Amino acid sequence: MLPRIGVRGVRESWHDRFADTPDVLKSAWRQQTVVPVLDFEIGGSEFINIAGPCSVETEAQLLATAHSVRRAGARILRGGAFKPRTSPYSFQGLGLDGLKLLGRARRETGLAIVTEVMSETDMDLVAEYADILQIGSRNMENDSLIAAAARAGRPMLLKRGLVATVADLFRAAQIALDNGNPKVILCERGIRTFETATRNTFDAASIALIKQVSHLPVIADPSHATGRRGLVPAAARIGVAAGADGLIVEVHPDPDTAWSDGDQSLNFEEYDAMMSSLAPWIALREEDMRASVAGDLDAAEVA
Amino acid sequence: MLPRIGVRGVRESWHDRFADTPDVLKSAWRQQTVVPVLDFEIGGSEFINIAGPCSVETEAQLLATAHSVRRAGARILRGGAFKPRTSPYSFQGLGLDGLKLLGRARRETGLAIVTEVMSETDMDLVAEYADILQIGSRNMENDSLIAAAARAGRPMLLKRGLVATVADLFRAAQIALDNGNPKVILCERGIRTFETATRNTFDAASIALIKQVSHLPVIADPSHATGRRGLVPAAARIGVAAGADGLIVEVHPDPDTAWSDGDQSLNFEEYDAMMSSLAPWIALREEDMRASVAGDLDAAEVA
Amino acid sequence: MLPRIGVRGVRESWHDRFADTPDVLKSAWRQQTVVPVLDFEIGGSEFINIAGPCSVETEAQLLATAHSVRRAGARILRGGAFKPRTSPYSFQGLGLDGLKLLGRARRETGLAIVTEVMSETDMDLVAEYADILQIGSRNMENDSLIAAAARAGRPMLLKRGLVATVADLFRAAQIALDNGNPKVILCERGIRTFETATRNTFDAASIALIKQVSHLPVIADPSHATGRRGLVPAAARIGVAAGADGLIVEVHPDPDTAWSDGDQSLNFEEYDAMMSSLAPWIALREEDMRASVAGDLDAAEVA
Amino acid sequence: MLPRIGVRGVRESWHDRFADTPDVLKSAWRQQTVVPVLDFEIGGSEFINIAGPCSVETEAQLLATAHSVRRAGARILRGGAFKPRTSPYSFQGLGLDGLKLLGRARRETGLAIVTEVMSETDMDLVAEYADILQIGSRNMENDSLIAAAARAGRPMLLKRGLVATVADLFRAAQIALDNGNPKVILCERGIRTFETATRNTFDAASIALIKQVSHLPVIADPSHATGRRGLVPAAARIGVAAGADGLIVEVHPDPDTAWSDGDQSLNFEEYDAMMSSLAPWIALREEDMRASVAGDLDAAEVA
Repeated sequence: MLPRIGVRGVRESWHDRFADTPDVLKSAWRQQTVVPVLDFEIGGSEFINIAGPCSVETEAQLLATAHSVRRAGARILRGGAFKPRTSPYSFQGLGLDGLKLLGRARRETGLAIVTEVMSETDMDLVAEYADILQIGSRNMENDSLIAAAARAGRPMLLKRGLVATVADLFRAAQIALDNGNPKVILCERGIRTFETATRNTFDAASIALIKQVSHLPVIADPSHATGRRGLVPAAARIGVAAGADGLIVEVHPDPDTAWSDGDQSLNFEEYDAMMSSLAPWIALREEDMRASVAGDLDAAEVA
Repeated sequence: MLPRIGVRGVRESWHDRFADTPDVLKSAWRQQTVVPVLDFEIGGSEFINIAGPCSVETEAQLLATAHSVRRAGARILRGGAFKPRTSPYSFQGLGLDGLKLLGRARRETGLAIVTEVMSETDMDLVAEYADILQIGSRNMENDSLIAAAARAGRPMLLKRGLVATVADLFRAAQIALDNGNPKVILCERGIRTFETATRNTFDAASIALIKQVSHLPVIADPSHATGRRGLVPAAARIGVAAGADGLIVEVHPDPDTAWSDGDQSLNFEEYDAMMSSLAPWIALREEDMRASVAGDLDAAEVA
Repeated sequence: MLPRIGVRGVRESWHDRFADTPDVLKSAWRQQTVVPVLDFEIGGSEFINIAGPCSVETEAQLLATAHSVRRAGARILRGGAFKPRTSPYSFQGLGLDGLKLLGRARRETGLAIVTEVMSETDMDLVAEYADILQIGSRNMENDSLIAAAARAGRPMLLKRGLVATVADLFRAAQIALDNGNPKVILCERGIRTFETATRNTFDAASIALIKQVSHLPVIADPSHATGRRGLVPAAARIGVAAGADGLIVEVHPDPDTAWSDGDQSLNFEEYDAMMSSLAPWIALREEDMRASVAGDLDAAEVA
Repeated sequence: MLPRIGVRGVRESWHDRFADTPDVLKSAWRQQTVVPVLDFEIGGSEFINIAGPCSVETEAQLLATAHSVRRAGARILRGGAFKPRTSPYSFQGLGLDGLKLLGRARRETGLAIVTEVMSETDMDLVAEYADILQIGSRNMENDSLIAAAARAGRPMLLKRGLVATVADLFRAAQIALDNGNPKVILCERGIRTFETATRNTFDAASIALIKQVSHLPVIADPSHATGRRGLVPAAARIGVAAGADGLIVEVHPDPDTAWSDGDQSLNFEEYDAMMSSLAPWIALREEDMRASVAGDLDAAEVA
């Protein structure tokens, strides 16, 4: 029941604005989608940390990272086996070998795996190894891929496109829902603006907006949102305060030698430090999450 | 000493990027500017709340708001006596009568006053009534006005332009510093992007960036950043988490009848509720502020 | 030989800027790519007009449009059989039936066909009916789809993404070239900005930029660039003046009843009128095109 | 009578969109404003060329430029005596000495003068030397300055703000009109977007839009719109095709040594060459201008 959440009068306009993606919106009978993954849930009362390297590079790199982020509190390991390439010379991922390494990291650590699928052709293969299929920013408007990923039955982490509006993101989510898969997790990872000091502009208020109008969980990606490792801890705190259900953070044993995204990756010590300093902020966020699960969101949000 | 703050290697690039505004950047001898206002400070260890109506409308409206926000914890009353007009038919402010009402609210409540100055011609008049002179977004590149305001000697609240980069904002601040006034307070209030669901896009990470590289205090404006009253509490929380030194929030006795910016104004109950729910978040922020004053920012930020 | 074209000193920076897509750039041995289609060429000395409906709707609609635009001077018929959908309720195209209608229009009028392919799964089918495969804006960063389309061997019309930079567009083109298909035609169709009076912002100067640094032909799309039928004739003139090799324009028998994009479609009379008024402008453009083919571009461009 | 211009049905929405600036829009009794300057007119049937250096630097520089651009066909000399500074170390203009040099160039060449006024304090002084007062992009929302410039009685060249919408530009123009000065000339000079290959993104379609809905003349600024001298000739052609009433182009005896904006300035030979190559395009444009003066714009535009 959308009118219950939020403040005087504004609600109706959200319904109008997002009228063409009705199933993405909250309704009287669906206030919050909870996506089960292994033995935990995304969108419930626990704040979920996802961490790992941009790309799967080597067994040593991946396993060391997996063990380290697990100790720091992460529940899910991220890592790309298939990479969008930004130039003909850039690294395109290890492919199947990368997936196998992710599988091994999963067995060794018990972490769930999220990894990107970039082609319908690879869907079955990736779905075999991934607990969550990631649809990258560059494919947020690739309807065929989203539909195929939905039909694969796995939970989906759907990243907002580089210049997608919230309405665009909802349209992409609606395609997944229309294809019979309700396990859609949205991800805010920054949008392209004129500002060049940061890689992207972190639209944190969109997380708050999505939480007000949609029942889908939302993850914040402070690494891509800023593109600057020195800003990642602050952006993570921003994501927590915005009301995200979790964070996805790039971590690498030695960011300066990373094959991709080194500028925005934390090393193990930095990730540990960030998680420690975030703890009291996450504790506050989880109070709201529990209140929300208990149906008291209004009180928590407005009063 | 800029290299002390932040994470490996990135620092130098900030210095390069902002090389033409050296006085805005942190240095070995200036880590943080503290701006004294009445009996408190902006940029010190206390988180400062500013609240009030978009425009000064009537004595009853202003005084009721001043008393209410003071009880809720605000230190400074905002209110426009000279308004940028968005159409030939829109309200342009009460002018001198508005300033006098602000003066009366100041005497009655002990709140400091921040109000916008839009013309060099009005400078002396506004400076007589204002504790802090506001330079609005639309005048952030009005060098003459900034220089004149700086010379007026009052602290200045300098709002980021609608599409100003952080570098642009620093250039505006440098003009004030060059004109002999170090009491400059920056304000992030959202930037213009393609996203239309919110009035602007709140660039919260820019607050974190500014706090890392500049010694100037920064205030977050969740009202303009979102333009939607239902999102103001969440955006306020985001501003706190981003590391702002304070908040500026639009409050009106009856937003639906406000002469300007009603859509983004909170009523008294909503502001009270927001301040209550913000309290534990502000408490966390103030721990960092005290650590920063004590010279322990690095520990707080990175570890 | 890139340094030959343009004005003092600036050239080198283009080479630096686009260094990761070397095959897209002009070189001593490749100044201009000419793409043969049926009995004409794109990128040669003739300005090529493409026109047709946004979507293939009915046989009557398509054939009437094909005959009309052919009489007005078009060489290629556009029409979508597979449509990106913007909501779960919006039209998704006739699919194979639409392709068959395009095939029939081709036989009846002799027009070449350009139509969008949205999924690798559909590639062979679409390639059977299309003389040119269109990669839509929303798939400009869908590397798998671009690679598959390149391997299909047909010329490719590659539309700039909604917020793609010119460098991004070049990267997409490089993927096609890397997959062995040199017949790539770029298309500028407007980018997303804060301006809402027009659907997009027509970045006409990017056409001029691309023509200076790349050997690939460029088509201007005034329909999507403005989204307003009343602005299409002026935007078409702008595209001609910018140095495009052709235009792609949406035309429909009755735009107000079009199943998609009616606001930006011209009816037959309007397209005829536009083509008449454009004729002298295109004549000027073709003088430059002939000069370019003759190797005299420098003179034409700079002097 | 706005509904006469353009194509089916779209017109009304323009009136709605720009409803708060009624005096800027065409009406039954005002289809086109013609601004007389010396012995010629802006907004009439002659296409007007403005050229000159970014800043007035020396007598030799200014006079050589004035004579050269006059020979090439310019009617108006541009040149800044008061400059917005982009850093505390950048050149701020010669001030009164610069104005005097402009006055001398005017006497020697018969060219009219357009120069920027940046402060109300300088208004009378600048108005004494300028035939047209320029309001720069950074001051487009400086209502006080615009009002003061309007009251000074001179024609005003009002440049679009860096991220101003067309509606914003109209609001600025309305302020001038409200202050009793109908001699307002708008100027499109590019807007800030995510694209960094060009300094700004030239929103040429906005010129066409403005010409359809407003009676005010519009000048295109290809120098600022692209920021790249190699693109200036093409952007000038784009401005002509878009329906501008004239061009303003930066010209300098030796751009590589210019004190400001050298990257986007043409030298004398380049300006001569550009004017020659533009001649047939301007001839086409002037046909439409004469048709418009004769009241036949609709035919020219639509048919």
